Amino acid sequence: MRNVPSLELVDRVAAGDIGAIARMITRAESGQEECRPALAEIYRRTGRAHIVGITGVPGSGKSTLMGKLTATIRTTGRKVAVVAIDPSSPFSGGAILGDRIRMNELAGDKGIFIRSMATRGSLGGLARATLDAVDVLDAAGFDLILIETVGVGQDEVDIVQAAHTTIVVSAPGLGDDIQAIKAGILEIADIHVVSKCDRPDSNKTIVDLKGMMTLGLNFSGNSNWRVPVIATSALKLEGIAELVEAIGQHRKALESSDELDARRKRIAERRMLKTAEEILRDEFEKHRDGKVSALVSQMLAHKTNPYSAAQDLLAEIRMEK
Amino acid sequence: MRNVPSLELVDRVAAGDIGAIARMITRAESGQEECRPALAEIYRRTGRAHIVGITGVPGSGKSTLMGKLTATIRTTGRKVAVVAIDPSSPFSGGAILGDRIRMNELAGDKGIFIRSMATRGSLGGLARATLDAVDVLDAAGFDLILIETVGVGQDEVDIVQAAHTTIVVSAPGLGDDIQAIKAGILEIADIHVVSKCDRPDSNKTIVDLKGMMTLGLNFSGNSNWRVPVIATSALKLEGIAELVEAIGQHRKALESSDELDARRKRIAERRMLKTAEEILRDEFEKHRDGKVSALVSQMLAHKTNPYSAAQDLLAEIRMEK
Repeated sequence: MRNVPSLELVDRVAAGDIGAIARMITRAESGQEECRPALAEIYRRTGRAHIVGITGVPGSGKSTLMGKLTATIRTTGRKVAVVAIDPSSPFSGGAILGDRIRMNELAGDKGIFIRSMATRGSLGGLARATLDAVDVLDAAGFDLILIETVGVGQDEVDIVQAAHTTIVVSAPGLGDDIQAIKAGILEIADIHVVSKCDRPDSNKTIVDLKGMMTLGLNFSGNSNWRVPVIATSALKLEGIAELVEAIGQHRKALESSDELDARRKRIAERRMLKTAEEILRDEFEKHRDGKVSALVSQMLAHKTNPYSAAQDLLAEIRMEK
Repeated sequence: MRNVPSLELVDRVAAGDIGAIARMITRAESGQEECRPALAEIYRRTGRAHIVGITGVPGSGKSTLMGKLTATIRTTGRKVAVVAIDPSSPFSGGAILGDRIRMNELAGDKGIFIRSMATRGSLGGLARATLDAVDVLDAAGFDLILIETVGVGQDEVDIVQAAHTTIVVSAPGLGDDIQAIKAGILEIADIHVVSKCDRPDSNKTIVDLKGMMTLGLNFSGNSNWRVPVIATSALKLEGIAELVEAIGQHRKALESSDELDARRKRIAERRMLKTAEEILRDEFEKHRDGKVSALVSQMLAHKTNPYSAAQDLLAEIRMEK
């Protein structure tokens, strides 16, 4: 018999029990059906936290920034949690060849919780699991929840957009600014950060981004908000407090307009769709040796095509209900 | 009335008409229902091409390599097509701030076709569209079809695994080797390429990769095949012919074992699932102002949760059938 998370576990999560939070997230990550009543109860208790998505291409200095940002938010007395789904993140376990930054300065503080999500699931489900983890942390009373993703790939963009505030990190050099524009992530920013501003070439990146803003490339959907470009240096500890301040100001701008409600609606829509997709994948797995296998044989014999096969599969799943 | 691709267009595709191929791919990209009969007919005519996926993190030199590889394959007399879904690829149009490499050396040759796929679709569909484009090129008689993706993000890994042969490009420096291991892309390689081997630090990357192979980290699923590590320099034009040779040898290894059939089955399975997911997303869009909107309101009021809402949505879609 598999381990069913009890409603008593939910109560312990709500009381801020770190062990219970970690266990509940692990159960959510597993995607097992038995977890759903507990996750439903968790969901009922959400809605208080400010959820902040942080993204940037590899090499943008996002990971170092995350460490400093987390520590600085914590000094304001608020509880802060990090959900990292960037496989190159220092928060992610299992680094084979090293390069994890030392998080010692943050360890041992119950007002900080750091979790890296597994990214090995071969057929998705990561977005659903990440948002369930955010729910757990929200229900557990964390004031700010930071979702860290690498800014490449549609899944990652989807996940980071399930936030109230989205921060895009660019770095000088490396052509990151160009790559980011092409990847379409710059336009989802509520706040721009240019990292590594101790470097002499950082000014060009700042000027480029400010130029974009002047050109009206502000897609934050909130006429109430002017997207700031914040220069940070994790090395010199510059700009971090300013970033924390900007996050707070963005929250206020959301609350003083219809935008917070609009974003909550958008997030709920996406969650529903992502969850429906996961149900579809689960049912696909269940039929793998049956209907799926039969349809694959027909495809390989060119007796059907991917679209007709997909429709047949959906019809089969439907008939069972 | 929308433009319906005719079966006559399919005949022109099959005859290798470049204009017809481009148009058919554009229609496939649109995902319009009207295209399905034509795509079904296209699919029926596929199965001859060797499909090669090429992936690597940004900065790996993959894009420059692609240009040289394409030109070198062409010199063997074979027709070669490239489908690029890396937004940082030189093959991708719309580079805002420049940096497209000059593809003049390839232009004007009807035995080469290069296509970049739009990556802006907010709710996916890219994998489905890419594989439809590969079908079009297969039906059009291209011998080799190269799919270029950036090796970050589950979508990209899914797409590149829809190939018969998968090449992973690493570069010296930049910590790419580490990032690639973490992202789980090294293990999907049938062929490893270390680019920029004119650089003195490239030897370390080669040794690291060969070490991994020795450690048995070969997940190519083919006991018949020893994953080679090929050093290339696009600058000095070294290793490109060796890479072309390795691609051919891998094809032979697939054909002389059960592995080609196994891969074809796996590809067909994934396509069916990706297509079913796209049908789900289309139906979600159709219900956006109706059932979806009602369920979102219930979620925001905490009267339901994402899982129950997703099930209700699927049930609603099912009832219509």
